[in-house]
Amino acid sequence: MFRKFLTAAVAVSALLAGSAHAQDAATAEALRDKALRDYLAWDITEDLTTNIGPRLVGSPAMEKARDWGVAKFKALGFTNIKVDEFAKTSWTRGEESAWLMAPYAMNLNPVGLGRTVSTPPGGVEAEVALFKTYAEMIAAPEGALKGKIVVVTQPMVRAQDGAGYGVAGISRRAGPVEAAKRGAVAMLIRSISTSDSSVPHTGSTANGEGVVTIPAAAIGVPEAEQLERLAAGGKPLRIKLNLQSSFDPKDVAWNISGDIKGSEKPDEVIVIGGHLDSWDVGTGALDDATGIAITTAAAKLIGDLPRHPKRTIRVVMWGSEESGGSSDAYLAANKDGLSKIVLAGESDTGADRIYSLQVPAGALDHPVIKTATRVLMPLKIYLDRAPAAHGGADIGAIEEAGVPVINLNQDASRYFDYHHTADDTLNKVRPDELAQNVAAWASFLYLVADSDIDFRALGAAAPKPASH
Amino acid sequence: MFRKFLTAAVAVSALLAGSAHAQDAATAEALRDKALRDYLAWDITEDLTTNIGPRLVGSPAMEKARDWGVAKFKALGFTNIKVDEFAKTSWTRGEESAWLMAPYAMNLNPVGLGRTVSTPPGGVEAEVALFKTYAEMIAAPEGALKGKIVVVTQPMVRAQDGAGYGVAGISRRAGPVEAAKRGAVAMLIRSISTSDSSVPHTGSTANGEGVVTIPAAAIGVPEAEQLERLAAGGKPLRIKLNLQSSFDPKDVAWNISGDIKGSEKPDEVIVIGGHLDSWDVGTGALDDATGIAITTAAAKLIGDLPRHPKRTIRVVMWGSEESGGSSDAYLAANKDGLSKIVLAGESDTGADRIYSLQVPAGALDHPVIKTATRVLMPLKIYLDRAPAAHGGADIGAIEEAGVPVINLNQDASRYFDYHHTADDTLNKVRPDELAQNVAAWASFLYLVADSDIDFRALGAAAPKPASH
Repeated sequence: MFRKFLTAAVAVSALLAGSAHAQDAATAEALRDKALRDYLAWDITEDLTTNIGPRLVGSPAMEKARDWGVAKFKALGFTNIKVDEFAKTSWTRGEESAWLMAPYAMNLNPVGLGRTVSTPPGGVEAEVALFKTYAEMIAAPEGALKGKIVVVTQPMVRAQDGAGYGVAGISRRAGPVEAAKRGAVAMLIRSISTSDSSVPHTGSTANGEGVVTIPAAAIGVPEAEQLERLAAGGKPLRIKLNLQSSFDPKDVAWNISGDIKGSEKPDEVIVIGGHLDSWDVGTGALDDATGIAITTAAAKLIGDLPRHPKRTIRVVMWGSEESGGSSDAYLAANKDGLSKIVLAGESDTGADRIYSLQVPAGALDHPVIKTATRVLMPLKIYLDRAPAAHGGADIGAIEEAGVPVINLNQDASRYFDYHHTADDTLNKVRPDELAQNVAAWASFLYLVADSDIDFRALGAAAPKPASH
Repeated sequence: MFRKFLTAAVAVSALLAGSAHAQDAATAEALRDKALRDYLAWDITEDLTTNIGPRLVGSPAMEKARDWGVAKFKALGFTNIKVDEFAKTSWTRGEESAWLMAPYAMNLNPVGLGRTVSTPPGGVEAEVALFKTYAEMIAAPEGALKGKIVVVTQPMVRAQDGAGYGVAGISRRAGPVEAAKRGAVAMLIRSISTSDSSVPHTGSTANGEGVVTIPAAAIGVPEAEQLERLAAGGKPLRIKLNLQSSFDPKDVAWNISGDIKGSEKPDEVIVIGGHLDSWDVGTGALDDATGIAITTAAAKLIGDLPRHPKRTIRVVMWGSEESGGSSDAYLAANKDGLSKIVLAGESDTGADRIYSLQVPAGALDHPVIKTATRVLMPLKIYLDRAPAAHGGADIGAIEEAGVPVINLNQDASRYFDYHHTADDTLNKVRPDELAQNVAAWASFLYLVADSDIDFRALGAAAPKPASH
């Protein structure tokens, strides 16, 4: 399974023989090839998903995950290990059920959107107003949906870069607020999903803190399509929805970090990572145990080198991505050191292969990036000349505060079949593709960490093209 | 999508020009090609799954389905429409839940096996005895599993002919009886599934009528694998299982039939069909709305011909396949006419393409079968020279009583990803493959129905090879 990646394994260092980058390129290639046969990322993923399980912010499992993260960093030789606590209102799912009541009785299988408010005890029953697109629901005037349960069945487009998520996801993120404005009593959405599965997808919605919203859940694709067909038949639909949950405004979460200390400029830091928290359905394998595993394993491989690269590589296990807050908390805790963060990146789109690299605009033709591009090519990764932007949710706040970012873009074609569902489990992770991720991160990180490349000076903030 | 099937569309009748079969072959080819572009089977499948929904024996939906079946036969021009009622103890699913309690708390998603007995109210909690194969559980001596919840995680092999179902299915069919003998208090099985999905598969187990059994459920593949990994970690596992259900011994079910009356020998009957009942999860699309749709649409296409074939084609909508009983009831109701049933076949493996034909041993080289083989080849169907046997569950009783059977074997590679689950829904049906099924049935049926071929005399009961 790995041989296919190795075709050009010795080419880059040979090309560079005699140049200043030759030794670095050779080291990066060796890291890459070692990573392709290394099972550390798999072992981390298996351990976290099996022995901790799902990791919702505020759950006992998340405390175990915090201790697990610290122990993992220690065991793998990371230094400067920190646990930064921050306040976070947590949310806990309770009883959930739904029934189609008319034109006939049929059990539905809903999953409450993350941080939804509850229905009244026992549930709410109402006639359905079904919209095949979100835009059609928005077109309904305020009050027009009074007393209704709104159902939006807009599908999601499968796209390698995950572009369908933003388009379809608005139903989940903003839908309940907009439906509430129009008088609806509850909302059901077709899962934000590229699959044909009955397993519904959760994910955060407006969280009821300071905005008027209504109880909201997702239903699986076949159920959404069934409701569409029944509605097309012309008979009125009625649904009963029961969603119970609770908030705890006094809860906390933690960002955890560990370093591979730089050998010459340890105060210059490259921040990478994945998020430790997950939804409560599934075991958060693709979202985002594998992000934790990929970045931790890549840094550990670099840490095992006889000489560390010049700069420090810091892995952050973000503590509240799904429920929000870890990004702002990290910025708040690191305001003073911000200018010393030379680069940031995160891994949070599962574990399928990386297919492209994006870097800050000014660095596109830098010799180090040219070397990196050559080292990555045998992994089937190309340099996308659209500059990096929106490095990820957890590095969003420091990116906005001026930290340059890179993207190692994972193929998202399959990711949205599983993410935020009971099917986000270890058996969806392909070991060879996971290893390809580690190989890309380790070789790229090493080259950048051992360089003097100043992404800020080169122009990190070039205009973002519309396509990204 | 259909063009690929049409390459050899005029070949067979041309080859036979001047022979006795030429006209029949041309008619069969025309039926085949018309069926490939016909949407009747799709419309029947969509109507039944959308407007009736799941159809568990004993449910109000099954009464609606009975009336739907009669109305459908009438609307499509079938004659001699019959509703044969028979006694059937029905089973209704109640509340179901399961939790892993140790080494940590995790919600599981069980589905009670069909016709399982209940746990005590509130459930049963016990330590787990996990076996990776059914054989290992059987090897445990009587009493050795006293007080345990047995978990069997044996996987199922994906196979085009569905052979993996028999091998893995024994856990479901016989497991609870065998585990009870050994002292277990409940049983969980890894879904009898070829998928990697979290959606669990139900299906009949020993039904508690006259045999000592225990409450039993299936869990999805990722959960079974998670329990395996945790058990391998060495810590004791505890599970709490709550399964509630009820039996009604005074219930009834119905076999419904309709005829395309033969033009010359109307008393000679070919019995085909699918089953109208389904499990209560999903909408019974692949199992077996499509079987109803394929056989009904094929017969209707033949009924539309200016001249009906010589023999009568009878479509039976079997009333209790999943819960058992329709096969025996049909034999009991048709004992007198049995010698006039010249052939039987059923469609009950979803809606993916047919890939082979099997006929009674003595008919393998009959000119009509040779013609049929040629007519079916453009549909990519070959004649398997292993003789037909085990034509299906619903024709099992009449087959045992001497009725010759044929198999039009559907590709089952994908079928066991979905069957008996909440994902057995319309969106798993591929319209072009559904149409290929109808094309095969219509053309084959026509040739046999318009022939004098006597399968009994030719030797229907040849020895069955071990591989089928």
